[in-house]
Amino acid sequence: MRGEARTAKGEKSRKKLIEATAALLRKQGFHATGLSEIVEESGAPRGSLYFYFPGGKEELACAALEESGAMWRQLLDGVVGAAPDLGAAVERVCGVLAEALAASGWESGCPLATVALEASAHSEKVRQTCASHYTAWEEIIAERLHGLGIAHAEARRVATFGLAAIEGALLLAKVQRDPAPLHTTGRMLRELLAQHVTK
Amino acid sequence: MRGEARTAKGEKSRKKLIEATAALLRKQGFHATGLSEIVEESGAPRGSLYFYFPGGKEELACAALEESGAMWRQLLDGVVGAAPDLGAAVERVCGVLAEALAASGWESGCPLATVALEASAHSEKVRQTCASHYTAWEEIIAERLHGLGIAHAEARRVATFGLAAIEGALLLAKVQRDPAPLHTTGRMLRELLAQHVTK
Repeated sequence: MRGEARTAKGEKSRKKLIEATAALLRKQGFHATGLSEIVEESGAPRGSLYFYFPGGKEELACAALEESGAMWRQLLDGVVGAAPDLGAAVERVCGVLAEALAASGWESGCPLATVALEASAHSEKVRQTCASHYTAWEEIIAERLHGLGIAHAEARRVATFGLAAIEGALLLAKVQRDPAPLHTTGRMLRELLAQHVTK
Repeated sequence: MRGEARTAKGEKSRKKLIEATAALLRKQGFHATGLSEIVEESGAPRGSLYFYFPGGKEELACAALEESGAMWRQLLDGVVGAAPDLGAAVERVCGVLAEALAASGWESGCPLATVALEASAHSEKVRQTCASHYTAWEEIIAERLHGLGIAHAEARRVATFGLAAIEGALLLAKVQRDPAPLHTTGRMLRELLAQHVTK
């Protein structure tokens, strides 16, 4: 593996490991995911695991959570920032999340939630990585609401509440194998946002 | 262990095992919790584990989730059923959950959520146990709302949305180590319920 760090092949192996880890963490969490399973799913050579992630599973998990968290932040930013009707956009997001969850055989919910709940008792690094992304997602929603004329404190409250509702709906939909909690939450949030934005 | 089943001592061991399992599942989930840790935390003799739970960790986990789910159902029923002001009662519940979470060193959130998210990929029994309790909790809220004069379909939507928001707030509060998401959610749900109930 020596010398592979800066090669295109090496970078490809690193990406494969991160993607496989992100998918496994999203599906089953931190403790159920073993390094052998990651290597197998990724198709990357085992040596690249120790080369790129000498800190082992915790380091790899943090890199994967960073990747997933940043991807969702970008998606959220795109949807929330551009939409003329924020409530309708949030409802659409819930619909898309429901479709993705069902299409994955009820495996792919929030990419952070499972790990956030189980690993916060065991890894401060993992906990902080998850917490920082949730905060970033909240801030995107709060800033957009503030931009629509809602006072800072109220925008923050609505953003926290909205994110909580979507996270909870993802959880209920996953375990109940039913898209209804996400559709219901999307509709209720659209109504709530309509009230706040037109106040 | 033979012959212990019907003795008071045996029943005590069984209860200890279930309580220890429930606490560990709540804190860290299914995969991080090993049988040795359960025996150690419970103080019950190891033999009682195999005697009462020949199905191993899955069987013990289901028994513990049944216990936790039933306990929360009872608490919810008491709070939601008796309160003259449902919104104020829900806000108080969120406050109590925030206090309990902080007092446990940010370990004790929803007793089902961690397991619901991670184990649904691996154990159909565990998934169904969690799902059935979430449904029961939703029904308690929906029935109370219907009793207050809200049409069935709307009562069901508000109940699903409210439960999702509280579950998400428990998740955010746990990983962010901050009671704010629960307090915010309690306040927002009180406002929401006031609108629906007085419609």
